[in-house]
Formats: sequence, C-alpha cells, structure tokens
Amino acid sequence: MPTIDFWYSIGSTYSYLTVMRLAGVEDRSGLSFRWRPMDVRSIMVAQNNIPFKYKPVKTAYMWRDIERRAARYGLHPRLPAPYPLPGLVLANLVATIGAEEGWIRDYTIATYRRWIEGGDPAGQEPNLSASLSEIGCDPETILLAAETEEVKRRLRAETEEARKKGIFGSPTFDVEGELFWGDDRLEDAVDWALASEE
Amino acid sequence: MPTIDFWYSIGSTYSYLTVMRLAGVEDRSGLSFRWRPMDVRSIMVAQNNIPFKYKPVKTAYMWRDIERRAARYGLHPRLPAPYPLPGLVLANLVATIGAEEGWIRDYTIATYRRWIEGGDPAGQEPNLSASLSEIGCDPETILLAAETEEVKRRLRAETEEARKKGIFGSPTFDVEGELFWGDDRLEDAVDWALASEE
Repeated sequence: MPTIDFWYSIGSTYSYLTVMRLAGVEDRSGLSFRWRPMDVRSIMVAQNNIPFKYKPVKTAYMWRDIERRAARYGLHPRLPAPYPLPGLVLANLVATIGAEEGWIRDYTIATYRRWIEGGDPAGQEPNLSASLSEIGCDPETILLAAETEEVKRRLRAETEEARKKGIFGSPTFDVEGELFWGDDRLEDAVDWALASEE
Repeated sequence: MPTIDFWYSIGSTYSYLTVMRLAGVEDRSGLSFRWRPMDVRSIMVAQNNIPFKYKPVKTAYMWRDIERRAARYGLHPRLPAPYPLPGLVLANLVATIGAEEGWIRDYTIATYRRWIEGGDPAGQEPNLSASLSEIGCDPETILLAAETEEVKRRLRAETEEARKKGIFGSPTFDVEGELFWGDDRLEDAVDWALASEE
C-alpha cells in the first residue's frame, strides 16, 4: 500500500488534531504515514494566504471548531492556545532533525501537547527542552544542531519540495501526488490510498 | 427537533455540494433546514477575508477538492466553473423572494446546476430566466421585484443578521446558535442537532 506523506508545520493549529490521532488512523487503516515538517508560513506569506491574521471572527470560529473536533477525538485542548507561534521555524528545524534520527513523531506529539493542552508555545523554552527531554533526547545537543546551516538547508529544501507539489497549508496529506488539505480530509486521503490498491 | 438554519450565498463554490445533497440529508436525519440567502461577499470583504482571489494554487486545489467531494456524493460538476460571480447579489436577491414565496430551494438547485454543471454563471442571463422558468416562475415579474428597494432591504437585513451571529462564510449551518462552517461540517451540524434532543 502507498505510504502517505504527512506534510505539516508545528505552528498550525488544526494540525494538532492530526498529530494526536494519526497513530490510531494508522492502526485502523493499515497505512503508514511519513512525517514531513516544512515551513508552511513562508509558503503562505509568499502566496498572500493569511487565513487568520486580522480576522477575529474567523479566528474565534477556528478555536470553537477545533474544540468540537477535539472532543470527537477524545482530546482535551486548552483553548485558545498561544497563536501564532514566534518559534515556528525553530520548532520545525528540530522536527527536521527528528525526521533523520527517528524521533519526529514522539517530539511532535510532545511539543503539541505542551502547546495546545498546556499553553506553552512550541518552538521556544520551556517547551523545546521539556519536550526533547521527555522523549530521551539531549536538548542542548539538538538545539545546537537545529541552528546549523545544514539543518536549515534541509528544512528549506523540504519546504521548497512541498511548494512545488502545490502544498499551501498544514496539514496536507500527499497520496502519490494527490493532495488532501486539512485534518478534515484525512479520511478522504485514507480512502484514496486504500482505493488505489484495489 | 431543532430546525437548522442553512445560511448561504449563491456564488459560493462549496455551497454547491450542500445545495445538491441537502434533501438527502434531511430525509436520512429527519431534520429540516431553513434556507437563508445572504450576501456573504459583503461580510467577507468587510472582514478582509478573501480566500481565493490572487491565490492560484489554493484555487486550483479548491476545484480539485470539490471535484472529489462531488464524486463521493454522486454529483457531476463541470470544473472549473465561472468564478467569481459578477451577479452574486442579484442571484441572492432572487433567492430572497424565493424564501418568501416558497420556491427558494428549487430555484437554488436549478441555478447552481446551470452554473456548476452547465457553465452558465448564476445571477445573470441566461441562467436567471431559465432557472426561474424551469421552476414555474415568471422571470420578468421576479426580476423586476428583485430590483426593488424592499427586496434589497430584506437581503441586507438578513446579511446583517448573519454577520451579527458570527457568520463569515458560506455555507454555514446554525443549530440554535452553534455555527458550523463549510459543507464538510454538515454532518457535524446534524449530529449536534440530534444530540441536542437527547
């Protein structure tokens, strides 16, 4: 069966729902997902796609919508969470290392939980070090590595690959080139992947 | 059981999905919906909420997403359809009369079918007269009435009521004050209404 690329940025509010429920979706569907962090904000700014800034009515709806959806999934967010995240890029630089080293999922879940359920913004302290320690990484080592040109280059390259695929938001599920944007399209992506096997 | 207010503007692309499948949802759920046209564009412009203009990547995705969703519902749109609609306001002025006179649903379905499945923009000729004739209305009478101050005032008042409720997009489902935005939240709205009866 095809592997689904799960493109996301830590910093996306709706991606919280996906991050927290993806393991269950994998178990039930038999599909596997490849976690691919990107800097979606740079894509969105370049495309003049600013969904919530200076939009208080739409933003208020977003939090209520996430709250209701989270309840359906048995999650317990504390909303509104701090948003937007000043540390978005650093949060995803750390995830980029995690993708290489095999702990990206654990880190992303840990940092999202602290951010959305605990009120501590991802991508900055104390969230960064606490999340890395929790999953058995040395924060000092990882945070030094995250600031190196090599890691920045990898995140930029991944972001550029996402942009070239037509990705403009987080989360996006890429099923062999077929894109599904939004946590609310995860089931559609799964159905698409399963149907492609028939 | 509560009646759900279905707030929409002819001119919204995603509302096509709702318009075409709402009768089936009513039958299956036992719920009834009140069709309430508004001028959502004026709300969106006032709130700096311009989701697709100058956003070619996001717009291309929208059409693909609608195409896939339509296929799930057994619909056959011809995409991309003409968009945006210059005649949005007139299309919804006619719907405002239809809401009073009891033919709003038939008109909305007829005009959406011509627009999204046939390529004839709603809110202008030949779509307007053909859709009205099809449902047994006299186009000349209705189109004269649609330009009167009384009908314009009614649409403005409905739009203002929607805005005050926190509505910012089409379609929106209002279940006794609980808002669900997007065709993809229709099932959530139905669940909410059914749960409120328990």
